[in-house]
Amino acid sequence: MSQDDTNSWSDKDDQMMRLAIAASCDSRIIARPNPWVGAIIQTYDNEIVSGSTQAPGDRHGEIVALDKLGDRARSGTLWVTLEPCSHHGKTPPCVERIISSGIERVVVGIIDPDPRVAGSGIKILREAGIEVCVGVRAKEVAMDLVGYLISRKLGRPMTLVKLASTLDGYIAASDGTSKWITNEESRLAVQELRADSDVIIAGSGTLKIDDPSLTVRLENRRSPLRVVLGAIPPNAKVHPARSFSGDIKDLLSELGKEGNLMAMIEGGAHVANQFLNQHLIDRLHIFYAPKVLGGGQGLRLFEGQGALTMAMAYEFDHLDTRTHRGDIEVIVQSKETTKLIQEVVTASTNH
Amino acid sequence: MSQDDTNSWSDKDDQMMRLAIAASCDSRIIARPNPWVGAIIQTYDNEIVSGSTQAPGDRHGEIVALDKLGDRARSGTLWVTLEPCSHHGKTPPCVERIISSGIERVVVGIIDPDPRVAGSGIKILREAGIEVCVGVRAKEVAMDLVGYLISRKLGRPMTLVKLASTLDGYIAASDGTSKWITNEESRLAVQELRADSDVIIAGSGTLKIDDPSLTVRLENRRSPLRVVLGAIPPNAKVHPARSFSGDIKDLLSELGKEGNLMAMIEGGAHVANQFLNQHLIDRLHIFYAPKVLGGGQGLRLFEGQGALTMAMAYEFDHLDTRTHRGDIEVIVQSKETTKLIQEVVTASTNH
Repeated sequence: MSQDDTNSWSDKDDQMMRLAIAASCDSRIIARPNPWVGAIIQTYDNEIVSGSTQAPGDRHGEIVALDKLGDRARSGTLWVTLEPCSHHGKTPPCVERIISSGIERVVVGIIDPDPRVAGSGIKILREAGIEVCVGVRAKEVAMDLVGYLISRKLGRPMTLVKLASTLDGYIAASDGTSKWITNEESRLAVQELRADSDVIIAGSGTLKIDDPSLTVRLENRRSPLRVVLGAIPPNAKVHPARSFSGDIKDLLSELGKEGNLMAMIEGGAHVANQFLNQHLIDRLHIFYAPKVLGGGQGLRLFEGQGALTMAMAYEFDHLDTRTHRGDIEVIVQSKETTKLIQEVVTASTNH
Repeated sequence: MSQDDTNSWSDKDDQMMRLAIAASCDSRIIARPNPWVGAIIQTYDNEIVSGSTQAPGDRHGEIVALDKLGDRARSGTLWVTLEPCSHHGKTPPCVERIISSGIERVVVGIIDPDPRVAGSGIKILREAGIEVCVGVRAKEVAMDLVGYLISRKLGRPMTLVKLASTLDGYIAASDGTSKWITNEESRLAVQELRADSDVIIAGSGTLKIDDPSLTVRLENRRSPLRVVLGAIPPNAKVHPARSFSGDIKDLLSELGKEGNLMAMIEGGAHVANQFLNQHLIDRLHIFYAPKVLGGGQGLRLFEGQGALTMAMAYEFDHLDTRTHRGDIEVIVQSKETTKLIQEVVTASTNH
């Protein structure tokens, strides 16, 4: 509870924040590298409007909603997933516009970890006499904005490793066969993950074996930047792609500086193992086909150096399990990422 | 639809069969080696009673329900999960009692694959002028009675292989550490599986490494017969246990003759692989801990000879996924077992 005792919220705040989260979905892709923010305003006479962040340089979610109302925003309440910005970036500070609009109460999901904001947006609003309540559905917002949070806190994109496997942990049989382990439904889910990523990273080994294009084949969805670890054969389907040699930490840092928020790592048990060993897997999606290869010399999910004893195993938190017509998608998150999200949630609810 | 056009059922039949299935749970353990049958009777003036099969030699579910009503069963309806028996076993045929009770309509879940029944129970009831409807919630009943169905059709117990694994398919690290991969909740679920089994089978290798007792530590639940493949060390905790050497097919046949309906295979990647290679896994429960070992020389879920190419992988059907405080239990069923169940369902709905 904050000292000015405004950090309490109602069921209605909870419900309106859900609407704001839903509104943010519209800008999930277009806002990058900015956070995809959703906002809801209820006017004094109970009109409700929503807004979501537009393309970079264009309006943030709060402003979109305010623009819909004009003078009618006066004395209204604003629910917004992320703390309104207080700095001059590509657009003027949202807090100034909120104050001048006459909004009386602002309900925020999470504080913005960007050092240029980091609570100062809330402070300015409160100093202007606006009641501000922070931390409503904070965990849900933080989970949704995890790519943005990691980017601002660690200076690199969120990493998502996707693997397709038999139930007993093989991504290829001993003769090298690996294509179509999982079914069409699973492959469609993978397309969605790709469409939600800014970058796809694959090893050059996978290119030699499978020659994948790594593009998004969903209508009206852009294909992410493709990065290959190692040399790219001239006729590879993955072109246009960037080739990278060196430490993956440097790669992620470079990608982070370019404004990429989400990187998907596909293809390559050795590449996956590199990310694992360096504790650089934020989320791991394993698509298990309900098949068993049994003993033998197949290629496993991770290849290379592993933990030598069970107590040293890399630990994750279970997030979700989905089924795709018999295939089972298990989604886990690294303990470090859970901790980072928790820090944002705690900071928000205590703000 | 049968020729006498009685094989149609209502929402009420569906609902009452659910009650009968629920009633059968009470006798799931005590009825063995008989099927655990549940029955519901609604009298002419709408009284409802239930019954479930008692210990071998004692009354079947239908008779338990009839006994509760006496003369009041006249003109009532009976819902029963399994076709009433028509032969003199340890008890007189249930059909005779049903006919003499004056019941007017009988609704059956599935026909009894036991060659001594196999439709003759239904035939006798119909010949006595009773309206008989077959196949209500047949799939659910067949899934529940799968151990009994396999036993009667294949002369062996149903087999359930249980394995605890990391997400990447390791049951032990390269230094041999394997205990407590999964958490306490998962281990409790394993206790339930054991309590539901007639036999637990383990390899002698597992005994040497872990020295498990393989007992059920739940209150008021019996421990199953323990069978070890290979020699049992004199001081092993698994005693009293039976040692078996030879073909596992012979073992299962022997266990089937003794009236065992459900065998759980625990412990041993090599033992699990023997069952896999011989297509003797009816159901596979894998408890995945949200951990990754990464590359290395750990012990995998199945060890020994496996499928050499992905197209030859052993295929299963996904049945269910459960979570146990972060651990993920994936339950799959062999295609052969699905087919056997489907045959019983089809035969029942067409009867």
